[in-house]
Formats: sequence, structure tokens, C-alpha cells
Amino acid sequence: MNMVSTDLDILNGEFSAMPPVHAMAIKATGMQDGVLSVTAPLANNVNDKACAFGGSLVSVMTMAAWGLLSESCRRKNIDADVFIADSQVRFLAPVFGDLQADARLHADTQWEVFFQTLLNRGRARAVTHSSIKNEHGQTLCEMTARFAAIRKKIE
Amino acid sequence: MNMVSTDLDILNGEFSAMPPVHAMAIKATGMQDGVLSVTAPLANNVNDKACAFGGSLVSVMTMAAWGLLSESCRRKNIDADVFIADSQVRFLAPVFGDLQADARLHADTQWEVFFQTLLNRGRARAVTHSSIKNEHGQTLCEMTARFAAIRKKIE
Repeated sequence: MNMVSTDLDILNGEFSAMPPVHAMAIKATGMQDGVLSVTAPLANNVNDKACAFGGSLVSVMTMAAWGLLSESCRRKNIDADVFIADSQVRFLAPVFGDLQADARLHADTQWEVFFQTLLNRGRARAVTHSSIKNEHGQTLCEMTARFAAIRKKIE
Repeated sequence: MNMVSTDLDILNGEFSAMPPVHAMAIKATGMQDGVLSVTAPLANNVNDKACAFGGSLVSVMTMAAWGLLSESCRRKNIDADVFIADSQVRFLAPVFGDLQADARLHADTQWEVFFQTLLNRGRARAVTHSSIKNEHGQTLCEMTARFAAIRKKIE
């Protein structure tokens, strides 16, 4: 687990450089088999009902998906900016513990097509699926989001 | 403007009591004709591209809608908790200035039906529409969200 975390130092540096992400203390904890895991403490993200604020749930699921795409591009040596285009979120049950989100590609998107399109056309779309579950594996909220990745121009 | 702000002291107290909302410095600035306006400084909400973080945009639009419903219930002397159920967000253009969101009821929901259902059944649903526009009135992002309001039990 420590070895995986070390691999995510660049990504976690990007996370903490964003003031709202730093305030919510969102951190990537591991990336394996196409899934990025992200965590944030409840204390930084609590609402008036002693559970997680909806905006924090969305932020954590957004950073998991954004981080998955950004880190995957970096590991392919593709220098790209990743932008969110739209999202659908379902809040199924309140989150009373720390926020643990996983993000993966949605079935609509394949890694090979995504990378090939990004390399050939300079931009590509990806659909992601993020979820927050409790310790029993029950899904508490989930997000489907579309992102655009755009290769940076070489100066 | 100052008079309107004073009316929103309780709501702004609720906002700032939530650590993530406090960190993003989200504040209600006015409520008029069924529209709640909310603002947050870019500095607290900026991402790696010098524009507003997507999670902050969602948080500001969520607080505008949640605040609209919570404050409207309070002004009707109905003691209710308001929960978000689901949301759809479209990010149309980056936000390079302070975040200014307006929220109103979606055409699917009428205030009279919402309050009557809440009083009769103890709970009611409401669909809201929030948007963030720039100084030229161009919509930069928008959110449609469903909320549930539940009357608090009298102890």
C-alpha cells in the first residue's frame, strides 16, 4: 500500500495545490487494475446533520475520476489537460464515516480507444463511473461523468 | 442589499457551520421572487487551470438550491431538514471569476404544492434549477437537482 501511495505523489501534489481540494483533504490512496481510490476525512467534509456534505461527496467522486484520467495519461507519457463536461449523481444514503471513493472507466469507454483518439486527434472523451461505498460494500452515492482530455501544445 | 443580507443571517450561519462550505467561503447574498443568490470567491475555489474547481461549482449550486428550500421553509415556519437526492450538472464553460449562483424551483415543482405536501404528509420533493453565469449573462454551468424535505418531529 505504501509503494502504491508513493506512485501517486505527483497526483497528490496536484490535488493539494487546489485550495478547495486541500481544504477537503482529498487524497489518492491507490491505483490498480484501472481503478483509482481516493479518500477524505469526514471532519473536513461534514454538514449540519453530522454526515458528509453533498458538495464534498461530488468533489471526492470528481477527483477520483479526474485523477484516474490524469494519472493514466501521465503513465502513458501523454501530457494532457482533463476537463469535466457533465455529471449525474445519485445520493442513495447518508455517509457517516470518512469518504472513500473509487473511480473507473464506464463501460462506454475503452482505454485503448481513449488513448489512441487522444494521440491521433489531440483530444478524446471518456465516461467515468465513481462510487462511495460503506465498509459493507453498500453504495451510498454514485456519479457518472463525461470528461474531455486535451493534449497540451508543445511550445 | 444590506437589508436583504441581514435577512439571511440564519442561513449564512448554517452555511458557515459546515466546514467544507466555510472553506469554500460560500455565502447567500439575497433572496427575492423565489430566487436565492449565492457567491464564493475564486481564490478559495480555484483549480490547477486558474479557473473554478468543478466540485466547487457543484457545491455553490447545491448550497443555492438547498438554501432556497431551507430558507423558504423557515419563512413559512416549517421546521424541516432538506436532503439532496440526485443532480445533473452541465459544465459549459470555465469560470474565471468569483462564483455567482442563482437557484429557483424547476418548472416541475410549485411552492404551494410543495408546502402543502410537506404540511400534510410530513415530507415533500422539490426539483430545483441552479446556474452560474458570467457578467454578460452567459450560463457557464447549470444543475438540476431533486431534494426531499422532511419535517422534524416535535419532541
